[in-house]
Amino acid sequence: MSKLDFIVEELVTANRILANEGVVDSFGHVSARHPDNPQHFLLSRARAPERIERDDIVEYTLDGTAIDERGRAPYLERYIHGAIYETRPDVHAVVHNHSPSVIPFGVTGKKLKPLLHMCASIGHEVPIWDSHDKFGDTALLVSDMDMGRDLAHLLGARPSALMRGHGATVVGRSVRHAVFVSVYLELGAKLQMQAMTMGKIKYLSRGEIDKITARVGDYSLNRTWENWARRAGREMQAMVE
Amino acid sequence: MSKLDFIVEELVTANRILANEGVVDSFGHVSARHPDNPQHFLLSRARAPERIERDDIVEYTLDGTAIDERGRAPYLERYIHGAIYETRPDVHAVVHNHSPSVIPFGVTGKKLKPLLHMCASIGHEVPIWDSHDKFGDTALLVSDMDMGRDLAHLLGARPSALMRGHGATVVGRSVRHAVFVSVYLELGAKLQMQAMTMGKIKYLSRGEIDKITARVGDYSLNRTWENWARRAGREMQAMVE
Amino acid sequence: MSKLDFIVEELVTANRILANEGVVDSFGHVSARHPDNPQHFLLSRARAPERIERDDIVEYTLDGTAIDERGRAPYLERYIHGAIYETRPDVHAVVHNHSPSVIPFGVTGKKLKPLLHMCASIGHEVPIWDSHDKFGDTALLVSDMDMGRDLAHLLGARPSALMRGHGATVVGRSVRHAVFVSVYLELGAKLQMQAMTMGKIKYLSRGEIDKITARVGDYSLNRTWENWARRAGREMQAMVE
Amino acid sequence: MSKLDFIVEELVTANRILANEGVVDSFGHVSARHPDNPQHFLLSRARAPERIERDDIVEYTLDGTAIDERGRAPYLERYIHGAIYETRPDVHAVVHNHSPSVIPFGVTGKKLKPLLHMCASIGHEVPIWDSHDKFGDTALLVSDMDMGRDLAHLLGARPSALMRGHGATVVGRSVRHAVFVSVYLELGAKLQMQAMTMGKIKYLSRGEIDKITARVGDYSLNRTWENWARRAGREMQAMVE
Repeated sequence: MSKLDFIVEELVTANRILANEGVVDSFGHVSARHPDNPQHFLLSRARAPERIERDDIVEYTLDGTAIDERGRAPYLERYIHGAIYETRPDVHAVVHNHSPSVIPFGVTGKKLKPLLHMCASIGHEVPIWDSHDKFGDTALLVSDMDMGRDLAHLLGARPSALMRGHGATVVGRSVRHAVFVSVYLELGAKLQMQAMTMGKIKYLSRGEIDKITARVGDYSLNRTWENWARRAGREMQAMVE
Repeated sequence: MSKLDFIVEELVTANRILANEGVVDSFGHVSARHPDNPQHFLLSRARAPERIERDDIVEYTLDGTAIDERGRAPYLERYIHGAIYETRPDVHAVVHNHSPSVIPFGVTGKKLKPLLHMCASIGHEVPIWDSHDKFGDTALLVSDMDMGRDLAHLLGARPSALMRGHGATVVGRSVRHAVFVSVYLELGAKLQMQAMTMGKIKYLSRGEIDKITARVGDYSLNRTWENWARRAGREMQAMVE
Repeated sequence: MSKLDFIVEELVTANRILANEGVVDSFGHVSARHPDNPQHFLLSRARAPERIERDDIVEYTLDGTAIDERGRAPYLERYIHGAIYETRPDVHAVVHNHSPSVIPFGVTGKKLKPLLHMCASIGHEVPIWDSHDKFGDTALLVSDMDMGRDLAHLLGARPSALMRGHGATVVGRSVRHAVFVSVYLELGAKLQMQAMTMGKIKYLSRGEIDKITARVGDYSLNRTWENWARRAGREMQAMVE
Repeated sequence: MSKLDFIVEELVTANRILANEGVVDSFGHVSARHPDNPQHFLLSRARAPERIERDDIVEYTLDGTAIDERGRAPYLERYIHGAIYETRPDVHAVVHNHSPSVIPFGVTGKKLKPLLHMCASIGHEVPIWDSHDKFGDTALLVSDMDMGRDLAHLLGARPSALMRGHGATVVGRSVRHAVFVSVYLELGAKLQMQAMTMGKIKYLSRGEIDKITARVGDYSLNRTWENWARRAGREMQAMVE
């Protein structure tokens, strides 16, 4: 199996997992940097993640131009992906979602921070991007490279960012990694909302976050991937690197 | 396939979707204006939405008289549908539901407003109709054209209205549109309840709501419809217009 | 089909529905007064409701003695059922459950009252029975007729009562009716908990409750029963009366 | 069937139940003391509980050394199990989980106490172990016998303990018992969070807790086990003791 074939299958599985775990609904998307050409990325045509098949995956340049569109309409917000790959050479996968539990944080400005060890990978504190600050009244969608780059700038070197009234964007060093962080971002947000009604929260310390993050390797990623893939009716592939 | 056949199939799918997505339980209903006769509408006989089949769909005049009842008992609240079609020529589909997350808004009088871009289609602010104001102690059901018209009057030109102690009514320019708004009304209510416990909310601005609403076209509606239909065990039909 | 056969099948379906709708977990039970002998009632042997089959249904006298036990161990709390049938000739079915959303009301003493029209059948206000008041430190279980009668006394002529730290007991004029009230008691409790965090609640007025309750007939009960039975893998039987 | 075969099958079922009931996600584990050698215990190789099969169960000494590893990578946190078996001869099964509803208690320091009779088995009050107190900034994982013994010391003679920012550990006199307590710990935490937003809670009294706990025998454990096992696609085995 070629590296490209491997990544395409990973993306199909990632879409199904994100839908099955409640991170995306009929919207949201996940991409991967092209394994043979870092100036390109792979992303489904505009379709609900739960329905995506192999043939839906399209190759794009970083500015969002399809290489071989064949009538497959693109996601409007493909600029989120391109702009992040442009500025973050360490990033090999991007998830954009409307993860339900993060929405209340984006609209109230409350800071989402990890309180559970499984959530350390979301970063020390998740910043909030408000499209209104620079672009005023819009449909909130990241509809060109200007907006994509503004979001990428706010994200900086972090693993995740919220988008006010919209959702979140999460990055990873692999598809499995970006999916892992996305699932635990949703869980962390839900738990923090609950804990906030109860009293003062002891979040993970900076040292704890760094130590946990350093440990999240294939050991953890593959354990979740095998489980989530099967739940979503897919099998875990052997790694091709 | 005739336009009528198309709409009947759409209604069956709409009922299954609304049940599967948690917008209706054993009650609630969805109708469509008759495609060939705008003075008639199509609505199931009295049955739980999750169970509805093609043969359950009955044709009614706007005052709620069945054209060909054949022993199929009608929903008592068919007047909701007739009264809205009477005053809103732009409306081609109506959903009435007991969507769980909207109930707390109706009984506390708190204003439900869109805070997530997907929810812009619910309108700038969802008004609350209280049957007690004009009709006093009743069973809360919209059981005649008088009550139906009073609700339609409160709804005005808006896409949705809450009903105190009862549920919500949502309208659309097509069946897919009314289902879309209904699903995101439930989600928006749930998220707003959560955000209200956290602090001051930055809702979508009027400009944002208008820009988003203007964009909700077949692109968005069909993506959700394909996904929700399949989840509910139905296929998306090609459009017949 | 005899009336007895009919009721036995109804009880199996009721158990499956209550489990499937989240009203009972591995505990909780539903009984029916014997259709031919009002001094007897029918109740499953001690088994999780989701697993109950026809042969699990045992006949008991009102004081909880099995007529034909055949090694089928009884529920300890069968006295709840017997004591209520003893004092309430209008009651033909009893549900005892640990319905999750009612528990917080029982332990905080907050009054559960209907705020949604579907919940009017729970009564004007649901009283709370605290076994500790009369019986002191116990295992909280209704383990003899004394405790059963004390609960029945608190219930009085009402349709439902909470039990502090334990759950609820609901009665009905038929199995379908008791199941209907039980499902909407759980929903009403969940919605009231949410609404209480938002502000002052406008509950249904006494007049509204009475008008709605008067309307809950076969029309409503059969619509829910058909739907809930199918979801739980059972079919609705034709009525035998 | 040998006692060992029986326990291995119990562990497979326990893993599936804990996943299916929402107590563990892709992490968490359950062990049993070896039935023929109290200085050894049985625990799956590192794998998501929902996926575990018979051949995944490995035998360990109390200090966490595998007897016959055969390439089956161990859970890092097996020391939790060994350290508890070392100090608690009454314990024959241990569950470690990230049970979602207990997390907010661990990070806010609010005391989790039983308010529902089904939850009495969690103990009079669930203590919170904070790895930071003695070990400073770590990855929060119990990664050696020192940490395991510190947790076991905090647990003392109790049935359960929370772990700040991490989850919970629950013990039992059998696999069925430890699973039972784990499921009701999750439920109790969820209900207490809800009740805390409503007002002052009347928890179970000490006398009630003791009387209920004394009654939790095979009668209760087997009823839940049969039900939860079937839901998870497994059958209940006859006891081998």
